[in-house]
Amino acid sequence: MLSPIKSILLSINRPTIYEQVKYLSQVLPQLSADKYNVKRKAFASIQAQDVDYFKSVLGEERVLTEQSDILPFNIDWIKNCRGQSSIVLKPKTTQEVSNILSYCNKRKLAVCPQGGNTGLVGGSVPVFDEIVINFMLMNKVISLDDVSGALICEAGCILENLDNHVREHGLIMPLDLGAKGTCHIGGNVSTNAGGIRLLRYGNLHGSILGVEAVKADGTVIDCLKALKKDNTGYHLKHLFIGSEGTLGLVTKVAIHCPVKPKAVTVGFFGVENFNSILKLYKSAKSSLGEILSAFEMADNQAISTTSTNLKLPNPISDYPFYVLVETQGSNEIHDEEKLTKFLSKEMESGLILDGTVTSELTKMSAIWTLRESISGAGLGRGYVFKYDVSLPQQNYYDLVPILRERLGDKAIAVYGYGHVGDGNIHINITVPEYSKQIASLMEPFIFEEVSKLKGSISAEHGIGFRKPEYLHYSKDETALQMMRDLKNLMDPNGILNPYKVLPEVNV
Amino acid sequence: MLSPIKSILLSINRPTIYEQVKYLSQVLPQLSADKYNVKRKAFASIQAQDVDYFKSVLGEERVLTEQSDILPFNIDWIKNCRGQSSIVLKPKTTQEVSNILSYCNKRKLAVCPQGGNTGLVGGSVPVFDEIVINFMLMNKVISLDDVSGALICEAGCILENLDNHVREHGLIMPLDLGAKGTCHIGGNVSTNAGGIRLLRYGNLHGSILGVEAVKADGTVIDCLKALKKDNTGYHLKHLFIGSEGTLGLVTKVAIHCPVKPKAVTVGFFGVENFNSILKLYKSAKSSLGEILSAFEMADNQAISTTSTNLKLPNPISDYPFYVLVETQGSNEIHDEEKLTKFLSKEMESGLILDGTVTSELTKMSAIWTLRESISGAGLGRGYVFKYDVSLPQQNYYDLVPILRERLGDKAIAVYGYGHVGDGNIHINITVPEYSKQIASLMEPFIFEEVSKLKGSISAEHGIGFRKPEYLHYSKDETALQMMRDLKNLMDPNGILNPYKVLPEVNV
Repeated sequence: MLSPIKSILLSINRPTIYEQVKYLSQVLPQLSADKYNVKRKAFASIQAQDVDYFKSVLGEERVLTEQSDILPFNIDWIKNCRGQSSIVLKPKTTQEVSNILSYCNKRKLAVCPQGGNTGLVGGSVPVFDEIVINFMLMNKVISLDDVSGALICEAGCILENLDNHVREHGLIMPLDLGAKGTCHIGGNVSTNAGGIRLLRYGNLHGSILGVEAVKADGTVIDCLKALKKDNTGYHLKHLFIGSEGTLGLVTKVAIHCPVKPKAVTVGFFGVENFNSILKLYKSAKSSLGEILSAFEMADNQAISTTSTNLKLPNPISDYPFYVLVETQGSNEIHDEEKLTKFLSKEMESGLILDGTVTSELTKMSAIWTLRESISGAGLGRGYVFKYDVSLPQQNYYDLVPILRERLGDKAIAVYGYGHVGDGNIHINITVPEYSKQIASLMEPFIFEEVSKLKGSISAEHGIGFRKPEYLHYSKDETALQMMRDLKNLMDPNGILNPYKVLPEVNV
Repeated sequence: MLSPIKSILLSINRPTIYEQVKYLSQVLPQLSADKYNVKRKAFASIQAQDVDYFKSVLGEERVLTEQSDILPFNIDWIKNCRGQSSIVLKPKTTQEVSNILSYCNKRKLAVCPQGGNTGLVGGSVPVFDEIVINFMLMNKVISLDDVSGALICEAGCILENLDNHVREHGLIMPLDLGAKGTCHIGGNVSTNAGGIRLLRYGNLHGSILGVEAVKADGTVIDCLKALKKDNTGYHLKHLFIGSEGTLGLVTKVAIHCPVKPKAVTVGFFGVENFNSILKLYKSAKSSLGEILSAFEMADNQAISTTSTNLKLPNPISDYPFYVLVETQGSNEIHDEEKLTKFLSKEMESGLILDGTVTSELTKMSAIWTLRESISGAGLGRGYVFKYDVSLPQQNYYDLVPILRERLGDKAIAVYGYGHVGDGNIHINITVPEYSKQIASLMEPFIFEEVSKLKGSISAEHGIGFRKPEYLHYSKDETALQMMRDLKNLMDPNGILNPYKVLPEVNV
């Protein structure tokens, strides 16, 4: 039986921002508006009668106006962005969300929708005084069909809670994130969250069966059908998947849950060079086929830094590259046979230099911990620049050696790791301390290189508040114009999550 | 090794309309405009200088104006709809499509995009004198990455040709349709085609990596990235998936191709009642897990009619219901073991009354032929009303007994069959001959029932020309209004595939 090992491991690393209030008041980040030199747009400002209206809709206790209560809603999880909102609303129903938006739209009051506030690009916190609409109280499971696997729930359900719920019915959620203990399914949908299971279960555009969303003017768009096939008119739900709350607020979600695997096995291999990783990936796709559930890589610096800094054991010796392969299947004996066969074949071929295969929970957990800890492992030694890009698989690792050469001894470490199977690499650059000069060596250089290779400058983290100015490296002007047209159509007053996703047009 | 059995079997049943010219001139269908009492909209009419312009862009031979040449482009595959176009354009490049649309948009000339013309709802043929833009000459494969599985090709590539191409590189196309020998990938994308493999490989919103499309005004929207993960701004490609050529014309496609399975096995089982089918489906999902590639059902009348009328052998005895289970996997021994175990378990439990399991090509092919021939089996005996609906799995078969009772002896046969795993049932009703009176017993009754159950009135066939008036049974007024808003935004002159998808608004 599969235990949700990863979820337990990962969620302990990420306390909710709401639990950190005391800490926050000691190390308050600079205001986003000042830090990034942004000008407030001409929205209305909140007045006493607005607060009265919201209280009439939600009741006293679901309208927060005390500064100390509001603080954690103004700051993002990585403590990079800080907004200035003076009010947080906690709706419980779609109708309440509709009433709030309809009112705000008429009054031209800007809003910032917020799920679990675990985003990495500042999309989930206000920039100025936007009204925070937090979905934490819209957390009900509406239905689960354990034959079709269709789960319908409200947007504020926490991903891990949903996963635990559907596991009791022999199913799993089709996505798995580090932030699963905190993030909301509505936020996952709004940001088209990726994660570890994407290789196996596909992206949310494929898994989401239906969405209920509220437009800026309060109109409720009901596309909540729990059907796998529905070719009746335009497929509106996709407009709300990945548009980061700027085209509408997701209030309910219908999602397809795959069957819970009966067997899980993890292999961890040492490899000579990146080219061998690609060959190994192709071989794994062929040998492991339908049971392959993860194919991750990390370079030597990524693993050695993590192993050293966090005192985590590396289960094999020192190698230039490492590969983590996970299988999930319905028959333990069959799966082990496949993985063992794959291992012996590729050790013989020389692609795998050394490796270990295990289906013991503690050992699998140790391997996943090592892999998942890379992201934060460099933080103690200086400032870490982090990039999350997609590249064609042939060019997956190209940027790391280029950056090493470009930065020379200015960087303490430059390493790459990520989801090879999805073409998504994370690149971390550790420097002694942040400086604009060193930043200018990487930006826009990295985005230009990604653009040349037809990659994506944001594979899974989204654009949010921090990346709109770089969007043009992945989307051309006609696509950007179409995005602006859609924004104007769906939210003509621009009240939904302003300063996010779309770059400002210089008039 | 897997042979593309199904594709060979199925494509022979469907000669292209273009090969049927002689036949067509004998049995010309009534003009759609007369048959369905439609009024021409106030578009411009084509003039000699328009033809000259098109010839200047495409050359003489890619502009058809002879009536006899144009006839097959005016008639749909099932010979239900007949348009009155006087010109067919055959672009070879995106730039040519862009030039054509830009010109037509300025001149307010309506166009009808056409792929393989295999649609079932009249979406691919003109209604009046729309200019046909046929994609048959945009049929080049641009690239195939056999590591990532990303195929990039032009819109006019025939699905079966693509499948054959990627099979040479150890991959398969993620969709499989009866029309694969004729249909174009661009048409598949534009209609969000479903088919047999959807249960296993998901829908096109999940499989399509990128799209290049041309807007009504000629603007080329380039979202052709071959990346699995790209969270940079709004996910525009989904606007072109399933909007049936009314928001833009798909010119290029990037699609993810899964690994070709090494083993295929088919089981055909007799079952007592529909409830047992649902139990069996749940059991198959659990026992066969990741190798389950199809779970199809047919009732006794469906199989007996097909078997009798087409003289096809039923490999097992007479049972109230039949189930076809297919597995595709990477290890023949493992797969057979799983399927045999499933069979013996469920014969013991009594869910399966009798059954056969085979991985012999000829036997598998015979079983698939029986299942796939149901659709056309009743055609010789009278008029067949055909419905393609999605319903929640609990209610999947509800409509068949209701319709049998409602129609009584007015119907020769009423039977249901389809993709249980996707909640998609096809219902065929054979009557001695078509009459409006008998039609009125079914429509809108069926759509009302589907609507009550929150189903879809068109699971995979789309809306096209024939179903806009029923769209409101699956989408409410706010969703319809949002569709109209999108149409106005993307195609303000309404030149793209008019009279299709969206219902007319009574002004």
